[in-house]
Amino acid sequence: MRVAIQGEPGSFHHIAALEWFPQDITTVCGDTFPEVFGLLNRHEADAAIIAIENSLYGSINEVYDLIEAHQYPIVGEVHLRIEQQLISRAPSLDTITHVFSHPVALAQCQNWLDLHLPHAQRIETYDTAAAVASVAHADNSHAAIAGRETATIHNMPIIAENIEDNSQNYTRFLVIQPGGVVPPDADRTSLVLVTNHTPGALASILTIFADAEINLSKLQSRPIPGSPWKYRFYVVLDIAGDTLHHTLRHIKPLTQSLTILGEYKHNL
Amino acid sequence: MRVAIQGEPGSFHHIAALEWFPQDITTVCGDTFPEVFGLLNRHEADAAIIAIENSLYGSINEVYDLIEAHQYPIVGEVHLRIEQQLISRAPSLDTITHVFSHPVALAQCQNWLDLHLPHAQRIETYDTAAAVASVAHADNSHAAIAGRETATIHNMPIIAENIEDNSQNYTRFLVIQPGGVVPPDADRTSLVLVTNHTPGALASILTIFADAEINLSKLQSRPIPGSPWKYRFYVVLDIAGDTLHHTLRHIKPLTQSLTILGEYKHNL
Repeated sequence: MRVAIQGEPGSFHHIAALEWFPQDITTVCGDTFPEVFGLLNRHEADAAIIAIENSLYGSINEVYDLIEAHQYPIVGEVHLRIEQQLISRAPSLDTITHVFSHPVALAQCQNWLDLHLPHAQRIETYDTAAAVASVAHADNSHAAIAGRETATIHNMPIIAENIEDNSQNYTRFLVIQPGGVVPPDADRTSLVLVTNHTPGALASILTIFADAEINLSKLQSRPIPGSPWKYRFYVVLDIAGDTLHHTLRHIKPLTQSLTILGEYKHNL
Repeated sequence: MRVAIQGEPGSFHHIAALEWFPQDITTVCGDTFPEVFGLLNRHEADAAIIAIENSLYGSINEVYDLIEAHQYPIVGEVHLRIEQQLISRAPSLDTITHVFSHPVALAQCQNWLDLHLPHAQRIETYDTAAAVASVAHADNSHAAIAGRETATIHNMPIIAENIEDNSQNYTRFLVIQPGGVVPPDADRTSLVLVTNHTPGALASILTIFADAEINLSKLQSRPIPGSPWKYRFYVVLDIAGDTLHHTLRHIKPLTQSLTILGEYKHNL
């Protein structure tokens, strides 16, 4: 199984891939989220692991748009606790002049950096693992922020542990597999819909779900390109299978479009 | 009136500021969105103009979080059509090796760049105006993407006009003013709420708005830091004043918290 990930070996995407796939996998690395979908398009990977949301930062809008554009089925979901480490060969914090990491990781450690490294320049990299790789080849005044596994892979010391500002820091990854089928124990459904123009259409849709005792675990609005200030809604429901499909028959007349992006089992 | 903007003179924030304030203003520039709020906190500016949403890119999540954290009143809203220009002294497109701009502007011109400048390296800057300033001092192989006004300010030629991929490209800016009061002709309200834990609370809230014939022009979910996979909702309603306040009395029992961020007049 060839699994596409965004970033390099040792990145959180890599760890999520190892968590989901029990068998041996080969990771195929893409620099960007569009490139991960490119790897699937060109059949250079059989599945992909892709971050969709962080519990502090919020949704990764670009990924929602890519999933809808490609419509490869979502077949699973992985939740990962994110702990950030300061990785450097510096003898002490005082000697660190530059901190490299992915912009989200830098944001997650902002208070810690303001307090402990107020004068160090923060430099954005496309991936936490790339930050560690660059620091491994630089002089000792450079540091990177990344996960523990990345430090291990690059044989680099951790100079400060768990520096993330909020310990309730989780990332939700989706598993995407062209030609993937709905697993028999599916308990979650992702869908995207555009309501029709009748006033209160969204209220009516949510009421139908509530009356059927279907829990919405996520409701995310995204713009419709070409229709300023009109939105499509991504919905994640804690249900899959026949009961859901029955309910969706009542929802459909209230929508202009409704597409199921995947029914899958999520691990928590 | 000192107005804080993100970016430099000639940026889209600057143009939005000139659109909203009829009188003479002095712009005070902040590098980042948190710095714009810093300028207000330190009384170095009397008001701020801050982008909240683009019709293609979607919401700027960081700004939602900053507005809620600071709770300075929103007193207005400006919609700006975004047209992107390729600005360079290059004699022809063939000789361009690097394109500089804000990541959102680069994304808005992605198809055009793929087609016309497939081999040019794309480099992210913190602001479109900063990209033009850097290109103005570089050799002729560099180009920047920014608005027409920025080219004029830097006395730089436009080498390709309106290169944005989608012409339905608008940005919505909020006007924020510490101590600002609700204008008598207010017709819009921004609020943030957290529903209580009863199933279907959000459905009930939207139904109350629908029954009162109050139009929701925006519903945006954002994570609650420290409570993974729980959300607060930003709501924009096309109404303000007494009718709204009456309706909110029925909404309040369905929420854990409900805060009005501003009632204002929007220009379209």
